[in-house]
Amino acid sequence: MEKFLKLKKREVIVSAPATVANVVCGFDVLGFALNEPSDLVKISLSDRSYIKIIDIKGADLSYKLEENVVGVVLQAFFEVSGISPIGLDVSIFKGIPPGSGIGSSAASAASAAFAINSLFGNILSNEQLISIAMVGERLASGTAHADNVAPSILGGFTLVRTHSPLDIIRIPFPDELFVSVIHPQIELKTSDSRALLKAKVSLKSATQQWANVGALVAGLFSSDYELIGRSLHDEIIEPERSFLIAGFQEAKKVAMEAGALGGGISGSGPSIFMLSKGLDIAKKVAKEMSLQYEQLAIEHTSYVNMISPYGAKLISSIDI
Amino acid sequence: MEKFLKLKKREVIVSAPATVANVVCGFDVLGFALNEPSDLVKISLSDRSYIKIIDIKGADLSYKLEENVVGVVLQAFFEVSGISPIGLDVSIFKGIPPGSGIGSSAASAASAAFAINSLFGNILSNEQLISIAMVGERLASGTAHADNVAPSILGGFTLVRTHSPLDIIRIPFPDELFVSVIHPQIELKTSDSRALLKAKVSLKSATQQWANVGALVAGLFSSDYELIGRSLHDEIIEPERSFLIAGFQEAKKVAMEAGALGGGISGSGPSIFMLSKGLDIAKKVAKEMSLQYEQLAIEHTSYVNMISPYGAKLISSIDI
Repeated sequence: MEKFLKLKKREVIVSAPATVANVVCGFDVLGFALNEPSDLVKISLSDRSYIKIIDIKGADLSYKLEENVVGVVLQAFFEVSGISPIGLDVSIFKGIPPGSGIGSSAASAASAAFAINSLFGNILSNEQLISIAMVGERLASGTAHADNVAPSILGGFTLVRTHSPLDIIRIPFPDELFVSVIHPQIELKTSDSRALLKAKVSLKSATQQWANVGALVAGLFSSDYELIGRSLHDEIIEPERSFLIAGFQEAKKVAMEAGALGGGISGSGPSIFMLSKGLDIAKKVAKEMSLQYEQLAIEHTSYVNMISPYGAKLISSIDI
Repeated sequence: MEKFLKLKKREVIVSAPATVANVVCGFDVLGFALNEPSDLVKISLSDRSYIKIIDIKGADLSYKLEENVVGVVLQAFFEVSGISPIGLDVSIFKGIPPGSGIGSSAASAASAAFAINSLFGNILSNEQLISIAMVGERLASGTAHADNVAPSILGGFTLVRTHSPLDIIRIPFPDELFVSVIHPQIELKTSDSRALLKAKVSLKSATQQWANVGALVAGLFSSDYELIGRSLHDEIIEPERSFLIAGFQEAKKVAMEAGALGGGISGSGPSIFMLSKGLDIAKKVAKEMSLQYEQLAIEHTSYVNMISPYGAKLISSIDI
């Protein structure tokens, strides 16, 4: 009867935000949370004896548990916690378009992990939540990486030092750092994007990359916007991948001319993000990138964002 | 006559400290200053019309300007400043054994740059001093790197983001971070050590390395000793180079057992440095490494140090 002792609520609705991973020089390591868009997951106790996805809005995804990011994360929760599975109805509201490069699957995984943990009175630690959300990432992309789920759960700017053991470091960031994201409607598979990467890189480029990662972390800690800007250079990944994204070079050019500090491919694309000091510049940057994609007649969505200090959160709940 | 207008002193004695570069994961990028040993340079106005090295103590080095680190740095000063060379007598006191891996040539270059600048009323900026000191490094090692001269001039912990343009970032560090250095008397040429490095590295190792560099910078900023310790891993250089240093693995092992946070090869060796929290542990670490080298019957010198917040400094001067 332990499972019922631990159950604290009979319904929760949780949101988790979109995230930017592969932050320029910080490939596979640095990520941050956006304040919009978000995914929502609703979990309610049901009279059934099993977990059932009853509704998915905003994207065409499988209702089978083992084929759905939310489904596998919920299963992972019961495995990790040792609690016996119970009957649950699950609804998924996708606010983040799948395949956009701003952590769509991660936000679903993060909200599922956070929601089921809330239902059971938060028995798992943040690290454990990230671990079970990574099971969703493995389903979505083939690799259980943490660079999107960590900021989607924790909020803010995060550095994934190692996966095994999981070592996530929270990096402070200055208040006036805003993000412009443009999502051009280009089909791009993470697996294709990953296949482009070379297995070997020159020691010279790698050294320049870790110099920039160190400098970027220093710039974030010391609120040195100019240093942040100077450090936002990617010697290794962007040159290989950016040609997959029509209009990338032009969008980045107009963004820099509009005053952006720097930026690049969000995740494995096709979204592009730029960091700016201040909301006004970030708005101008987003507008210029939009105009660029209008000229190319490529459909697109743009967002102007804070780096959100908040990650996954409880929107509403009904106690037992 | 401009040269005489700018001349402020007729004699200066300057010291500049030993430094640790290639700080574990931060190959070619991270370095810090030690509080001992140091090199000293004395420069006095002379009746001659040219620069002459009149005395060198502590090492067997060339008295020819163009073959001596101090000589080429002084020449670089006159080129960069546009001041016409004047007659100077130069004495060099080497407190740091050449070939030790703790920035011996860099300390000579740094003290020469700082001394000649003092003589002329500090007309060059710190960045310019680092640039002219790098001319000495090019003579000594074949490459004009800044990762030793930057901390030797500025003190503290530094990150060289780029050489061109020169972009040096000062990284704060916690008060209780102490350094144990052991210098085993093993002949090791920087050029041999450099030849061992592979031109290509795996993307996987490189990514792990920049994760650790970012985490190390975060640990230094936030005075998180455990994070500093976890980040002190070198995926790339140490595995290639460490077998050149007899006793390296054993010395590192006893140091870690004695409570060190981590460490590795200082510069390109043969010195080994370890970081510890607190002076007592750092002393114990140095002692255990010494015992290890005694057992191997390899002559050695050990130092227990603060990370020095001070770089090159004026020891004494006589005004015009």
